[in-house]
Amino acid sequence: MNFSFTDKVKRMQAELTSFMNEVVYPNESVYEAQLKAASIRFSIPPIMEEMKNQAKAAGLWNLFLPDEEFGAGLSNLEYAPLCEIMGKSMIAPEVFNCSAPDTGNMEVLLRYGTKDQQDTWLRPLLAGDIRSCFGMTEPHVASSDATNVESSIERDGDGYRINGRKWWSSGAGDPRCKIAIFMGKTDRDAPRHLQQSMILVPMATPGVTIERTLSVFGYDHAPHGHAEVSYENVYVPAENMLLGEGRGFEIAQGRLGPGRIHHCMRSIGVAERALSLMVKRSKERVAFGKTLAEQGVVRTWIADSRMEIEQARLLTLKAAYMMDEYGNKTARKEIAMIKVVAPNVAQRVLDRAIQLFGAAGVSEDYPLAAHFANIRTLRLADGPDEVHRDSIARLELADRR
Amino acid sequence: MNFSFTDKVKRMQAELTSFMNEVVYPNESVYEAQLKAASIRFSIPPIMEEMKNQAKAAGLWNLFLPDEEFGAGLSNLEYAPLCEIMGKSMIAPEVFNCSAPDTGNMEVLLRYGTKDQQDTWLRPLLAGDIRSCFGMTEPHVASSDATNVESSIERDGDGYRINGRKWWSSGAGDPRCKIAIFMGKTDRDAPRHLQQSMILVPMATPGVTIERTLSVFGYDHAPHGHAEVSYENVYVPAENMLLGEGRGFEIAQGRLGPGRIHHCMRSIGVAERALSLMVKRSKERVAFGKTLAEQGVVRTWIADSRMEIEQARLLTLKAAYMMDEYGNKTARKEIAMIKVVAPNVAQRVLDRAIQLFGAAGVSEDYPLAAHFANIRTLRLADGPDEVHRDSIARLELADRR
Amino acid sequence: MNFSFTDKVKRMQAELTSFMNEVVYPNESVYEAQLKAASIRFSIPPIMEEMKNQAKAAGLWNLFLPDEEFGAGLSNLEYAPLCEIMGKSMIAPEVFNCSAPDTGNMEVLLRYGTKDQQDTWLRPLLAGDIRSCFGMTEPHVASSDATNVESSIERDGDGYRINGRKWWSSGAGDPRCKIAIFMGKTDRDAPRHLQQSMILVPMATPGVTIERTLSVFGYDHAPHGHAEVSYENVYVPAENMLLGEGRGFEIAQGRLGPGRIHHCMRSIGVAERALSLMVKRSKERVAFGKTLAEQGVVRTWIADSRMEIEQARLLTLKAAYMMDEYGNKTARKEIAMIKVVAPNVAQRVLDRAIQLFGAAGVSEDYPLAAHFANIRTLRLADGPDEVHRDSIARLELADRR
Amino acid sequence: MNFSFTDKVKRMQAELTSFMNEVVYPNESVYEAQLKAASIRFSIPPIMEEMKNQAKAAGLWNLFLPDEEFGAGLSNLEYAPLCEIMGKSMIAPEVFNCSAPDTGNMEVLLRYGTKDQQDTWLRPLLAGDIRSCFGMTEPHVASSDATNVESSIERDGDGYRINGRKWWSSGAGDPRCKIAIFMGKTDRDAPRHLQQSMILVPMATPGVTIERTLSVFGYDHAPHGHAEVSYENVYVPAENMLLGEGRGFEIAQGRLGPGRIHHCMRSIGVAERALSLMVKRSKERVAFGKTLAEQGVVRTWIADSRMEIEQARLLTLKAAYMMDEYGNKTARKEIAMIKVVAPNVAQRVLDRAIQLFGAAGVSEDYPLAAHFANIRTLRLADGPDEVHRDSIARLELADRR
Repeated sequence: MNFSFTDKVKRMQAELTSFMNEVVYPNESVYEAQLKAASIRFSIPPIMEEMKNQAKAAGLWNLFLPDEEFGAGLSNLEYAPLCEIMGKSMIAPEVFNCSAPDTGNMEVLLRYGTKDQQDTWLRPLLAGDIRSCFGMTEPHVASSDATNVESSIERDGDGYRINGRKWWSSGAGDPRCKIAIFMGKTDRDAPRHLQQSMILVPMATPGVTIERTLSVFGYDHAPHGHAEVSYENVYVPAENMLLGEGRGFEIAQGRLGPGRIHHCMRSIGVAERALSLMVKRSKERVAFGKTLAEQGVVRTWIADSRMEIEQARLLTLKAAYMMDEYGNKTARKEIAMIKVVAPNVAQRVLDRAIQLFGAAGVSEDYPLAAHFANIRTLRLADGPDEVHRDSIARLELADRR
Repeated sequence: MNFSFTDKVKRMQAELTSFMNEVVYPNESVYEAQLKAASIRFSIPPIMEEMKNQAKAAGLWNLFLPDEEFGAGLSNLEYAPLCEIMGKSMIAPEVFNCSAPDTGNMEVLLRYGTKDQQDTWLRPLLAGDIRSCFGMTEPHVASSDATNVESSIERDGDGYRINGRKWWSSGAGDPRCKIAIFMGKTDRDAPRHLQQSMILVPMATPGVTIERTLSVFGYDHAPHGHAEVSYENVYVPAENMLLGEGRGFEIAQGRLGPGRIHHCMRSIGVAERALSLMVKRSKERVAFGKTLAEQGVVRTWIADSRMEIEQARLLTLKAAYMMDEYGNKTARKEIAMIKVVAPNVAQRVLDRAIQLFGAAGVSEDYPLAAHFANIRTLRLADGPDEVHRDSIARLELADRR
Repeated sequence: MNFSFTDKVKRMQAELTSFMNEVVYPNESVYEAQLKAASIRFSIPPIMEEMKNQAKAAGLWNLFLPDEEFGAGLSNLEYAPLCEIMGKSMIAPEVFNCSAPDTGNMEVLLRYGTKDQQDTWLRPLLAGDIRSCFGMTEPHVASSDATNVESSIERDGDGYRINGRKWWSSGAGDPRCKIAIFMGKTDRDAPRHLQQSMILVPMATPGVTIERTLSVFGYDHAPHGHAEVSYENVYVPAENMLLGEGRGFEIAQGRLGPGRIHHCMRSIGVAERALSLMVKRSKERVAFGKTLAEQGVVRTWIADSRMEIEQARLLTLKAAYMMDEYGNKTARKEIAMIKVVAPNVAQRVLDRAIQLFGAAGVSEDYPLAAHFANIRTLRLADGPDEVHRDSIARLELADRR
Repeated sequence: MNFSFTDKVKRMQAELTSFMNEVVYPNESVYEAQLKAASIRFSIPPIMEEMKNQAKAAGLWNLFLPDEEFGAGLSNLEYAPLCEIMGKSMIAPEVFNCSAPDTGNMEVLLRYGTKDQQDTWLRPLLAGDIRSCFGMTEPHVASSDATNVESSIERDGDGYRINGRKWWSSGAGDPRCKIAIFMGKTDRDAPRHLQQSMILVPMATPGVTIERTLSVFGYDHAPHGHAEVSYENVYVPAENMLLGEGRGFEIAQGRLGPGRIHHCMRSIGVAERALSLMVKRSKERVAFGKTLAEQGVVRTWIADSRMEIEQARLLTLKAAYMMDEYGNKTARKEIAMIKVVAPNVAQRVLDRAIQLFGAAGVSEDYPLAAHFANIRTLRLADGPDEVHRDSIARLELADRR
């Protein structure tokens, strides 16, 4: 047992932190300003592409992808502390081509895609030239239970005919989004976990319509956006099928492990940034004759936040270690645990930070409220807390000890 | 001791509930649509003025004002359950001319205003013809400590010269907002609680500039808005002074009691609406073969929400009773308690409801996220939780028992 | 709606408080000393009988019993604030002949007993000459589900033959305990809620054996005690049956309403005493150069405790009001709510008080740890929190609104 | 970074677990029975000495002591998982000669004792032949602030004259307790942290009187006991001084680091045992037609417990790692954190377990209530939660980042 990062990781942490300090943080306001100034709401602030080029040049690119040929070849345990750093800024993950849902989609294409599928979609995604979305959640059923999916994918000649309505297709609003991975039922009579399939649907296919983008609290999250997308008689060639009919659930499971842990790593970063803003503010602000930092209740917030963050980070790192050493299946209890723990910790730390910042905390002057909205949503995304808690209990009860 | 409402209150509850069901709820989406369709973001959806006229015609107008000549003549205890009902819809309080900050400003003008001040500003406010804002909070100091206010009001000939920067001047963005009650220092050498004064500043006075409106968790709250307003060499006649130089703190204290309790009453309504949405949804939605209503964790949420709401309501009603019977000063511990309890209860209930609704809960499809943003802010507005907790402790420690 | 007590209640509160101050509190240590000095652990400290005589002489006797002939004729709403006062001292309820399980047993005998049963058992109980126990909980089944009861009551000639094992028969260890109300199954083939009956079993009947008394967090609760009692072929005459065969569940339901609310009232008293000890200590004790009362965290504890107690008290009073006005059945949601709320509030306040008192708080030098043990147990007794939460949810979900 | 234990640790875990299963757990009831049967309450159950001999023979002895000559030579990180296992049974630490306060006292003697002091006291302690106590806490001052200590140690000829009253001298009630480490002031005019000294006081010295033993909740903790001890004109030779006059605070600081982490390790073991009892019970017990394990609320308890335990364990292990790698001073934030986290986690898990066990949970039939009493006390011992939280905040605020 050893709690120190390797030298390689320490070096990359330093590089990434420098890049954040020199490029990302100073450009947060530039990005915001360009976004506001744009005549079309869902258009890309030019500074983003500039930062992406800089990150690529600096070798800080595709760090999420453990594959050594296509990605940076880092283990989960190596990537975790880097992903945490990226999580501190809302615009950072994209800068390093490490943002959801593309990361998950790239992994799916890498693991399950054919050579053709990879050439057409994976390579431009890895290059940061296009973006993608994931069509899973549906408005009319409880998505916490994945078998509830109602959309249909029907074989029809040399292709498949797709019908359904998806929402929370994050990133579908982005003008660069060219491809969706769509989940639907190919066989309603098959056993429950073999009914679903995943298929590639180019966004430009006739019948694919972005109906609206949904807000998260009051944020539209442009130019990314969370879209409600209708698929009406959408026809794609048969070779767009991923892995084979009936294997959608299997792919979803494989996709979720790394995706969840990335979210958690970033959540730790969010919490860490909130705590550091809180510490800074508490030393500057005076009320009733004392700095906030001298007030007992504020000190309790700081201490509790530190304790919660440290623990959540260690558990996340352990989960990463387990995934690396024993595989995602053996690590599923740890993955479920961090999926509950990390966003809840971040939410609590953000809530305290907002309270300390007063009204400024809920405004756009600080990133606290915006992070809060995301983190709150993360307690629902990729399975709500309750589903993960239930999995943990199930595994615990099944344990032989 | 008696826990039943009087027949008068029951009758008014029934009337108000009918009006909500027939007029307000069905028009929530109309209001939203008109707001979205408007070419100018901060313009008033016409349906609002229509609803106001209907409410006035129905005699459901100015219910907040205990004065029998100017208002409805209800006691706090009578108004509480009505205000709760209004709180259920974000647009309702304005419909009944019972929305902040006008209610507090009207009370100030009624209690402390001269006949002239009342004729010019109170009457059109009572008629719902104009709106008002309150300039107290400042960006550069901790507003939890009211003595931190830095703006200046200097005597200059027959008038006062005003300089300062205020933010969170809610409602200042409304095109109908014509008057601000401004707090600033007239005498920095006076004892701490006699340094401040309040003065009337017409919004059209030269030097008054709305610099921007602030967002609350991404919401701009148009057409109301929370403005940052600069006052540069603003000159107003001496008769605009309220009550007299150095009495600003005194007015602020008097203003806050009823203002706080109104917020709390509405918070109970918010929580009640969230619970009823939660109950409804839980019976309709199915996951893992059972309705959510049949799942133990959801049942716990419903039970806990009911227990918390009931208790918060009783405490709010008791505070109202104390104010009516013994005055705001004697009731200050109860007022401080509900100011902490009510928004925290509402926040917890909303958080549970959001969790139950899944991603729909954070979107604009349900009012949960929007209410959450307001309620979260209420834990900061009119004094953060911590200041009120400290007051409660102080009073408790001073207690002779 | 009115939040003031009647003059009658205020007068009785004053009388009871005087009696507590003059007789009960000063004798807590006497009682403790006599108990320790006794050669037989389960014997009655003589001071108890003295105090009982004083209470009877002062007319502070059987206040719990709403019946005007047999008891004090107080409504639940009148008794609540008095019961709260008694709850402040662990030895007080018995002093006033208002302690469990006798109160519940006396109500059962009054409501459902025959004239003979009343003459033999109710009268000496009302006089405080004997005590009683209640045999319901069994060691081998989950008692949260009352239909789990396994003991048998079989008709045999002119009597019933009783077999079973009960535990947590509180008060059975008391040498004055002469009678048990025993619950068991008379007909295992009847519908679930008609299988059980209640029958009177004199403790002196052959076959009744006190196997041991159970500890509660290390306390043996002598001379009361929580006994495990075996019933082996115990034979009692048929006229000992209460109300009739198969009506045990019905009696249990009727017994529990008032019993639960008494526990809750006393819990409020416990919390109030803990808070007042906390307030006093915090002003006297100095750490790091300030009294504890000046430290922010301690002030938060005091404020939170006050808020929680006030709310729990109001809910308890409302439940009492509902029982008086609409009956126990209509009030069942309120009863369930206070059964969860009151002990949980008291537990939290006690936990804070213990923390403030440091190691003294867990010792016998203050009543905090002993109260904690009782209050913790109360979250299990008469139905665990979870069963009551479920009932609240069920009622809420069934609500037409 | 690596989250697996070394082979050496795994082997020792296995050995220790076997010993627990074969010797300790089966003898818990024997120990309890012998204790109850003894005519003198504070006498040692013979089974304890038998188990100690077996442990010594098995080489499972003095594992806590990192010194290779006197102890087992394990690092903190190696000892942590072993100490956790010992924590599962209340009688286990003594079996392995790893129980407080002896462990801390032995470390003090090893680090700061003279050869003579070591020969006379350390060797028999290491052999398990005698026991010891630590006289620090005083009844009349807040011990959370160590500078509050009031006892006096005055130079007088060739020795020191000692006066004072200590309480919570755990283990002083044990008939084998032969030596106290006593803290008192040698120089009230010295700088605050140089006023105190520590001195060895044989329990048999005239003037040392055990006034009483204090209860913890209702437990007397015989034969160990928490004594109140008066020191009246106690005279000891000058060579009994430890390290030198004025160095008491320094020794106390050195003593507390390892002592605290041992408590925390054991707390994890307590929580783990409670969870495993909870899991087992939940599968066996049926209520309302389902096992408890199938009920949503119980599953939440199990999942939350697992998440909290895992995190607390990781933080404890990291603190141990930091102590080993960087020393106790650098690790002080981590030590403070686990001192808050571990007992609080254990308390929550125990509270849930008690709730699941119903009334059985508060009785002596399961170890839950007894562990609860200890763990609750641990939140006060060696500094209350609040003092550690404040240290964490102080370190966090001082952090340069």
